[in-house]
Amino acid sequence: MIDNKMRNIRVGVVGCGYWGPKLVRNFQSIPGADMYIVADLRQDRLDHIRGLYPGVRTTKDYRELLASPVEAVAVATPVSTHYQMAKEALLHNKHVLVEKPLTRDSREAEELIALAKERGRVLMVGHTFEYNPAVQYLKEYIAKGELGRVYYINCTRVNLGIFQQDINVIWDLAPHDVSILLYILGMKPTQVSARGAAYVQPNIEDVAYVTLYFPTGIMADIRVSWLDPCKIRRITVVGSKKMIVYDDVEPTEKIKIYDKGVDAPPYSDTLEEFRLSYRYGDITTPAISNAEPLELECRHFLECIREGRSPRSDGVVGLNVVKILEGANRSLKNGGLAEELSW
Amino acid sequence: MIDNKMRNIRVGVVGCGYWGPKLVRNFQSIPGADMYIVADLRQDRLDHIRGLYPGVRTTKDYRELLASPVEAVAVATPVSTHYQMAKEALLHNKHVLVEKPLTRDSREAEELIALAKERGRVLMVGHTFEYNPAVQYLKEYIAKGELGRVYYINCTRVNLGIFQQDINVIWDLAPHDVSILLYILGMKPTQVSARGAAYVQPNIEDVAYVTLYFPTGIMADIRVSWLDPCKIRRITVVGSKKMIVYDDVEPTEKIKIYDKGVDAPPYSDTLEEFRLSYRYGDITTPAISNAEPLELECRHFLECIREGRSPRSDGVVGLNVVKILEGANRSLKNGGLAEELSW
Amino acid sequence: MIDNKMRNIRVGVVGCGYWGPKLVRNFQSIPGADMYIVADLRQDRLDHIRGLYPGVRTTKDYRELLASPVEAVAVATPVSTHYQMAKEALLHNKHVLVEKPLTRDSREAEELIALAKERGRVLMVGHTFEYNPAVQYLKEYIAKGELGRVYYINCTRVNLGIFQQDINVIWDLAPHDVSILLYILGMKPTQVSARGAAYVQPNIEDVAYVTLYFPTGIMADIRVSWLDPCKIRRITVVGSKKMIVYDDVEPTEKIKIYDKGVDAPPYSDTLEEFRLSYRYGDITTPAISNAEPLELECRHFLECIREGRSPRSDGVVGLNVVKILEGANRSLKNGGLAEELSW
Amino acid sequence: MIDNKMRNIRVGVVGCGYWGPKLVRNFQSIPGADMYIVADLRQDRLDHIRGLYPGVRTTKDYRELLASPVEAVAVATPVSTHYQMAKEALLHNKHVLVEKPLTRDSREAEELIALAKERGRVLMVGHTFEYNPAVQYLKEYIAKGELGRVYYINCTRVNLGIFQQDINVIWDLAPHDVSILLYILGMKPTQVSARGAAYVQPNIEDVAYVTLYFPTGIMADIRVSWLDPCKIRRITVVGSKKMIVYDDVEPTEKIKIYDKGVDAPPYSDTLEEFRLSYRYGDITTPAISNAEPLELECRHFLECIREGRSPRSDGVVGLNVVKILEGANRSLKNGGLAEELSW
Repeated sequence: MIDNKMRNIRVGVVGCGYWGPKLVRNFQSIPGADMYIVADLRQDRLDHIRGLYPGVRTTKDYRELLASPVEAVAVATPVSTHYQMAKEALLHNKHVLVEKPLTRDSREAEELIALAKERGRVLMVGHTFEYNPAVQYLKEYIAKGELGRVYYINCTRVNLGIFQQDINVIWDLAPHDVSILLYILGMKPTQVSARGAAYVQPNIEDVAYVTLYFPTGIMADIRVSWLDPCKIRRITVVGSKKMIVYDDVEPTEKIKIYDKGVDAPPYSDTLEEFRLSYRYGDITTPAISNAEPLELECRHFLECIREGRSPRSDGVVGLNVVKILEGANRSLKNGGLAEELSW
Repeated sequence: MIDNKMRNIRVGVVGCGYWGPKLVRNFQSIPGADMYIVADLRQDRLDHIRGLYPGVRTTKDYRELLASPVEAVAVATPVSTHYQMAKEALLHNKHVLVEKPLTRDSREAEELIALAKERGRVLMVGHTFEYNPAVQYLKEYIAKGELGRVYYINCTRVNLGIFQQDINVIWDLAPHDVSILLYILGMKPTQVSARGAAYVQPNIEDVAYVTLYFPTGIMADIRVSWLDPCKIRRITVVGSKKMIVYDDVEPTEKIKIYDKGVDAPPYSDTLEEFRLSYRYGDITTPAISNAEPLELECRHFLECIREGRSPRSDGVVGLNVVKILEGANRSLKNGGLAEELSW
Repeated sequence: MIDNKMRNIRVGVVGCGYWGPKLVRNFQSIPGADMYIVADLRQDRLDHIRGLYPGVRTTKDYRELLASPVEAVAVATPVSTHYQMAKEALLHNKHVLVEKPLTRDSREAEELIALAKERGRVLMVGHTFEYNPAVQYLKEYIAKGELGRVYYINCTRVNLGIFQQDINVIWDLAPHDVSILLYILGMKPTQVSARGAAYVQPNIEDVAYVTLYFPTGIMADIRVSWLDPCKIRRITVVGSKKMIVYDDVEPTEKIKIYDKGVDAPPYSDTLEEFRLSYRYGDITTPAISNAEPLELECRHFLECIREGRSPRSDGVVGLNVVKILEGANRSLKNGGLAEELSW
Repeated sequence: MIDNKMRNIRVGVVGCGYWGPKLVRNFQSIPGADMYIVADLRQDRLDHIRGLYPGVRTTKDYRELLASPVEAVAVATPVSTHYQMAKEALLHNKHVLVEKPLTRDSREAEELIALAKERGRVLMVGHTFEYNPAVQYLKEYIAKGELGRVYYINCTRVNLGIFQQDINVIWDLAPHDVSILLYILGMKPTQVSARGAAYVQPNIEDVAYVTLYFPTGIMADIRVSWLDPCKIRRITVVGSKKMIVYDDVEPTEKIKIYDKGVDAPPYSDTLEEFRLSYRYGDITTPAISNAEPLELECRHFLECIREGRSPRSDGVVGLNVVKILEGANRSLKNGGLAEELSW
């Protein structure tokens, strides 16, 4: 095993737009990886990569990458091509890391899961927030029961642009929040509803609201927008004992725990005597590791390859997220009526 | 007329819980008002008022107030009693200022409007934000066309408590945002939908989301909650040219105008060439008068009485708000299905 | 004694500019006080008071107030008149609460202390921050040793205006910080230095920096300005174990405790091995009572009168503050050279 | 000339601690530079660089770098070695970019200036902030006269660590503010004073205050500290017409212009009539380019080499900064007495 760990894994990255270069940088600097080849349709993106890392091969034809001796492929192309890229890579017996969302269709996701299983390859989805130390803290804090019973969760993820042309804002931004919710709650919603509107591009919603209903009565709301003047990345989890806010835009104080809550009042006969009891208390901002989530994700991918393990954000997680997004988009077309989710 | 303006108007206030004392303070200090009598069921609240203003009469029986020589009555009792209180005051030929929401039922609101008309009395609803200089600025800025076409509006009004026992959070907090939206847009929505949940008190929603759909395609979302660790009072208006954020919690910089937006791209044949054009620009924080909205509201009430005018936030405005809140609550019971609003 | 406590103390307030009306409001609403008479040179200020509190007597001649049956006088006039007003009130056998700074000259302060002692009256200075729950918390936190050894303190108190015409910004704003420092550290500085400049009014410094040197090596810096675009009220106390920030502008999170610090490194032979050890940790925001400091101060004044006690911020505290301000102003004239303080 | 511009300039970087790797990354990605060789005493730092940029040569012996065919050398070693490193590089006829401060002694700086002139080489100091778009904006805004007459400037640059072992906090952090002040005001101070204290390491001040006095009456204060719980990077420039705040910690709204100020009042006979006139107005946050200052600095260095020009932050600028820091440290030893600066 130790011997195995020493071996460098050759990695190829397909797609060098917004996200690809970050993957390249990480695979270039992480020990145990050999950042071998990058593919993109645009020559200027490839030149940019070569300027930074003269040792990395580049190609405009991703088939050249697939034919190369890389063992692992990271797919950072537009969402509409994820399925095809991941499928071809698996058929070439590569381990595959696909950016989120895994696919635009749950049947495609199921097909990739089956194919990865058949070929004995790792299929991982880039749900980066599952590797974020703040999200990890949130999950553990809830699991310890310190929040009490979780009541509801509000997620806001808005900013100005980057607009996508092949998917709406739900497919683009909500995968982050959906994967965080599944991860920290450890359960799947039974219903989803969504509302939205398309202002800048016809038929591509740029503003949307998604509501997930979980079995225990937890309601989780997600607000996503490409059309907001401020960048907000904020998740509020309200429990019966405490409340917690995770603000990803804060440079250092990402998590705040509010030791105040509301107790349901004891039974009383008269309205006059009826009072809710409040508990106001301290606020705590725990120290959170500032390790880069993407680096942790890339390391996890390599470890899973070496040890033959299934990743935290495996194909099934990716599929679950896709099913919820599909449901949200169906609701969007149906005037916001809640859609049942079957698992 | 000038002579008329000199005359002091005798005012009575019914209800001295959270809001009533603020009305008393204003009617006590505004020239032209004679803060005459206060009624409340609780002796300790009356003692508190008398400690501050030894000249003000107090009574535990509101009928004593109605029988007194006051010309104007401000009703600051629980919502469920608004209709009865306002009706009795009008039947005693008093001018009436009722706290928002006007009533819990639109038929009751219609009845009050008819009664006020019949008796020739002023009926005003305490939609304070219509007298807020920041909201006034917002309305004028939109009217001048500087935002361009209004795309959508997001309102957030959350904090921890004060819980109500006779109404849910929509009836308690959403009247503010609904009245602001009607006022700044100058139109009425055609549909409303809502989702929510009751966590602390059974069947009384403490968390809710309301969506209004306006004729021109404007979507306005309102998030209200009594169960949030932070006090947020924030309205974001996104237009085709600019964006504006009104943050009522900010002590001095309440309004920020973002001179950045997104233009729909020109038609293009290839996906590769397709790019949205962004315009990033300056942010402006205009100087806003810090006059107290409640004082402006109270002065407006007195002026309307003196001049026989209909107030800005008259009974019809109050009725429109009630109709929208009724629709939202129907949608809440129907799984979030959008309700048509007929005007 | 209990009987004594029931008795209402008649209070007079001299000066109704910026601060006086706040004193009037408190003495009006606190049980145990009878807000009897207010004196000011300006009729419009007196009319304002009478509009709010019809039962309060008013006069343009403060001698009328001194001749009235009040037992206690609060002096809220310009600083240059404090000495004269307080002296006359004591000579009329009144208990006296004087706004800070007590006087402009330490000999005058000493005279007032002697006079109050001779007449057996309470002499108190309105160092409001000593009654502020956040400052109280700070004092107790330091006393418990949780910060470790106190290293240094930085105070910033700046905003745009209110300009004074009879005193510079050190006399106007620094009394707050100086009294806080004396109170939370429980010791007196041995040296003081100051730098400043007068930009708007000739010879009246509107920007200044004051440095206090305490016996244990604690350096405390105070920045005061009437010429800053932002209102900042911030005190940072750095200790060997923890650090604490008190931000008085924050509406709810006034105190933050930083559980991070720096340890001096162990001795080492080579520079290469030499590293300081850092400890990063949690941040805690304790819940602080939001009781109004001025109300607590006014209650304390009344208690001291009733029980014949010396107040927390008595004449001696006021004198100590004046001596430090005198030293700072001498240093200001001497090019910032540190002035020795003799106690 | 154009031909000249095409040519790649071979660059070597000495020192790969905190700052060096940022220089390497920039020279690696900027067109027109050939990032050739890196020297550092520590093998692990060199391995780190080689992991990222396999094409870059590395050495533990900086003399190997000097002997290599590089034309330009960037010195990012501890301050105490700047003089020796820069001198040797110039003696090898290299163009030199030295991190700030240029040297610890003004005579050394003068010697380097003379040597660079003699050899006809570019000598540049890494005063990065002179290449910062926000500082550029500040300079131009002041030059246009929009602030009116500049009254005073306050600079705060504090955080927890990084402690230096060979220089105090003035030498470490104040060079940034001093170079910004010289640059935006376009003049040199006539006096400097400083106060400070050493808490963690004996005789190495970790907290200090520096005051610069400029000919026109401008007072500029600089607060620097390695011992503060919060990272603050804030410069406030107060003028007779407007005020401007530059907050470098803000991710997007770095500059805010406050259109409010104070006019000196007209002469008046009586104190009562005397009032200062305030002008409250809008706040503007201009859009500032988010180009990386270090990249602009590195490009400027290459351009000056190609075109034989003297850089914006040349040796003389570096010398001026060193002279002021020397003066500040003399004042520190003399109890804060202001030191005259001779130019």
